[in-house]
Amino acid sequence: MQTGERREELRRIVFGADTPAGKFYDIGLILTIALSVLVVMLDSVAAIHESHGKLLYCIEWFFTILFTIDYVVRLRSVDRPVKYARSFFGVVDLLGVLPTYVSLVVPGSHYLAVIRFLRVLRTFKILNLATYQAESNMLIRVLKSSRRRIVVFLFSVLTIVVFIGALMYVIEDADSGFTSIPTSIYWAIVTLTTVGYGDISPDTALGQALAAVIMILGYSIIVIPTGIIASSFADDRRRGGPASCPACGKGGHDADAAHCKHCGSKLS
Amino acid sequence: MQTGERREELRRIVFGADTPAGKFYDIGLILTIALSVLVVMLDSVAAIHESHGKLLYCIEWFFTILFTIDYVVRLRSVDRPVKYARSFFGVVDLLGVLPTYVSLVVPGSHYLAVIRFLRVLRTFKILNLATYQAESNMLIRVLKSSRRRIVVFLFSVLTIVVFIGALMYVIEDADSGFTSIPTSIYWAIVTLTTVGYGDISPDTALGQALAAVIMILGYSIIVIPTGIIASSFADDRRRGGPASCPACGKGGHDADAAHCKHCGSKLS
Amino acid sequence: MQTGERREELRRIVFGADTPAGKFYDIGLILTIALSVLVVMLDSVAAIHESHGKLLYCIEWFFTILFTIDYVVRLRSVDRPVKYARSFFGVVDLLGVLPTYVSLVVPGSHYLAVIRFLRVLRTFKILNLATYQAESNMLIRVLKSSRRRIVVFLFSVLTIVVFIGALMYVIEDADSGFTSIPTSIYWAIVTLTTVGYGDISPDTALGQALAAVIMILGYSIIVIPTGIIASSFADDRRRGGPASCPACGKGGHDADAAHCKHCGSKLS
Amino acid sequence: MQTGERREELRRIVFGADTPAGKFYDIGLILTIALSVLVVMLDSVAAIHESHGKLLYCIEWFFTILFTIDYVVRLRSVDRPVKYARSFFGVVDLLGVLPTYVSLVVPGSHYLAVIRFLRVLRTFKILNLATYQAESNMLIRVLKSSRRRIVVFLFSVLTIVVFIGALMYVIEDADSGFTSIPTSIYWAIVTLTTVGYGDISPDTALGQALAAVIMILGYSIIVIPTGIIASSFADDRRRGGPASCPACGKGGHDADAAHCKHCGSKLS
Repeated sequence: MQTGERREELRRIVFGADTPAGKFYDIGLILTIALSVLVVMLDSVAAIHESHGKLLYCIEWFFTILFTIDYVVRLRSVDRPVKYARSFFGVVDLLGVLPTYVSLVVPGSHYLAVIRFLRVLRTFKILNLATYQAESNMLIRVLKSSRRRIVVFLFSVLTIVVFIGALMYVIEDADSGFTSIPTSIYWAIVTLTTVGYGDISPDTALGQALAAVIMILGYSIIVIPTGIIASSFADDRRRGGPASCPACGKGGHDADAAHCKHCGSKLS
Repeated sequence: MQTGERREELRRIVFGADTPAGKFYDIGLILTIALSVLVVMLDSVAAIHESHGKLLYCIEWFFTILFTIDYVVRLRSVDRPVKYARSFFGVVDLLGVLPTYVSLVVPGSHYLAVIRFLRVLRTFKILNLATYQAESNMLIRVLKSSRRRIVVFLFSVLTIVVFIGALMYVIEDADSGFTSIPTSIYWAIVTLTTVGYGDISPDTALGQALAAVIMILGYSIIVIPTGIIASSFADDRRRGGPASCPACGKGGHDADAAHCKHCGSKLS
Repeated sequence: MQTGERREELRRIVFGADTPAGKFYDIGLILTIALSVLVVMLDSVAAIHESHGKLLYCIEWFFTILFTIDYVVRLRSVDRPVKYARSFFGVVDLLGVLPTYVSLVVPGSHYLAVIRFLRVLRTFKILNLATYQAESNMLIRVLKSSRRRIVVFLFSVLTIVVFIGALMYVIEDADSGFTSIPTSIYWAIVTLTTVGYGDISPDTALGQALAAVIMILGYSIIVIPTGIIASSFADDRRRGGPASCPACGKGGHDADAAHCKHCGSKLS
Repeated sequence: MQTGERREELRRIVFGADTPAGKFYDIGLILTIALSVLVVMLDSVAAIHESHGKLLYCIEWFFTILFTIDYVVRLRSVDRPVKYARSFFGVVDLLGVLPTYVSLVVPGSHYLAVIRFLRVLRTFKILNLATYQAESNMLIRVLKSSRRRIVVFLFSVLTIVVFIGALMYVIEDADSGFTSIPTSIYWAIVTLTTVGYGDISPDTALGQALAAVIMILGYSIIVIPTGIIASSFADDRRRGGPASCPACGKGGHDADAAHCKHCGSKLS
């Protein structure tokens, strides 16, 4: 019982933000995360690494041990540790400490510790930003409902890019950078998405003509997913109407619907 | 009769996906296509071509013969071979094997065999993705209904690009890359679509000013087709539904509405 | 009278497309325009200019004289020549021949003759594309109704670009390409519109940080005009409802409006 | 009293545009601002600075003193100077003169005087462009109502960019430009926003594959804020109108509706 109560208290501090101690813990965590990400970044700058490398190395280990303790405390304070460990934030918490330990074996991998930055997402909670969560959920819902259309769109883009890559490899010389089909596909993606690095660019008239076609294509087809998402948003918004029919239980009603479109019953 | 039955059975295996044999055939086909495209790609990488060129050459011919057999089987299993040969997938199936044969005469053309990648589209069928097909159809329908506006838009873009290309050719020196009007048009497309390779870029103040105008133009006019497509999507969503309620005469019903959302009457 | 009749007949041939002669004249004109634009383009390619320069020069003058005759015929066949000369197509027809004459005084200006490409617009008429004209009109109407919001948007973009240009000029060295404020503004436009040539790019950490801000800004604010245009399109579409109220004469009704929103009268 | 009257008169001239003197003052101000910004720009061009540097220096000080007098007059002519000094335009007016004075201590800072360009915004007033102000307000309102979703979106983009930056730093050599995590993050932003300078670009196959993923991601996620803004615009359009008809209870009225479009009753 004693243990159960202490665990409950611990849980409220590390997971909740409604007690002063919980709020304090959360704010401290944000600052620590921000600082530790900054340390990892600074350590990657050659000049700073040379002059302060040792100090940064110590600070990073200090933070990593801190986050490891936090992870263990979280594991112990919840009723079902496995469920937490498998949740989105459980995985992020683990991934935030692992790279530093792995770097003992694989040098350089500790830079990936920046993923702990994702933990800041958790703090939307302390800012009492329930609405932010609602917005996040809406974004996810819209993306989910557009999932199939996005898959069809991405597959079409992939097919275009593979074929045009092969075509450009045949048309252009290796001298202009089109050294292999995978490289040409890379170029096609760079062009279609209008990024256009310029490290590879066509030299022949035919290649430039084909490139022009891809550019206009890439410039134009972006409007397709835009239309998809925009209409999904509009749908989601409209679905603000009566949640579900009291008679048949089906949903998807417009905001101005007076009767259920499925069974015709009056909606409140 | 015997032949007719065998042909029907064959047809169900190669074209259908509702029998275990048909499903097995389709899954095998996807894997074979993916593998063969991979082989063509790898063969184009100089280092791999040198070390394993012969092996890849053999594998490619193996796949090509396999696909040729598949093509012939398909031709023979359908009632009207000409109709199949002229259909979208019939043409894709043929184009997927032709390049390897053509490469005997025109070296290098076998890289175009990657177009057989398009055959994967056919497999949306086995995944039982009727909805994906519905989404594809919707995309095509929206594009078709926006066809005319897109033609007007593309023609306007073409005119802008041709004129600005000629103008830049007059303004800029050949030293900065504007060596001819076609090249300048290529540059104008690269700029208008915001790709911006940087292989050609204006040096004079006047040229840079004109380039700035094109960039802002290109950055802005993309919103026009976006608006076109977005409103077409919204239309398409609406259009499917019953035009207007026979009881109260009001419209605006969803495509899946069974009852009028205004008065609750049954819709035909 | 005789003259009036002949003029009327001439007018139907050169301006109309409803008689066989008129159609023939229009088709001939399109081909001639396309050919002449092609000739101007080819002449700008150094290699072709050297080998066939004289021939192309003659052909260009031949086409210019042809278009000059066409222009004079058009002027003489209409009732009010001044009105025609001032109309959009009157100006385009004149601009299509002027550059060649001007090139006698200012060498090189004849390349601008590509503007005669715009004359092809006129031929939407022969293709009996009344609907295309409707689409063009819709585009123009939507752009006009969004005019004010676009001006506000462009002015904001201009202000951002001027200020950021000056800021980058102060932050960055002349070595990285930021040699003057106008050049820096050019860079800011290149970056904001996501063109990104790479001929000028920041080297200092502060400059790169500021550049990152502009990129995200440029990447984000494009959605504003998109929203503007998309909602204008939706508006225009909705205006498909009853054109104007029979009682008060005002328009702008929704497609599902049963009563005038201005005076409350019943709409048919 | 005498002073109060004179102040009121002064206020009408410098702040108002309804009297001839006020209009004259405003037009003079616009021209002066435009000229002074031009002078600052020209002074930054090395060649012009060398030949006319002294003259431009004098002109700039002349304009700065003019704007200082204008600022003091504005301060003295309003009833509550502190309120004005803290308002948007009060701050802009001050920032427009400060850089020149600061440049006496910190050389080069006078280039920031281009911020006085923002003062032109004030002149929307003289053009009697109340509607422009309405459009500006609408833009601001839409942005405000989308604020939370934009924060969620920008935070997600930031997280992606930080993580991908660290990943690319681990994958790529310093030779290809990925010298530190901050630099890699800069590259990730350049790529995600599809700017693509090309000053840094991946060389390894793995790096190019990851870059391709970011490009497609960047190319795709732009549609999310577009959907957000587009639906916010649509909302804003609707919201202005009467919520629902007092007679029939139906909604969906335009902002300018005087009568219910469903039953024709008067709307309050």
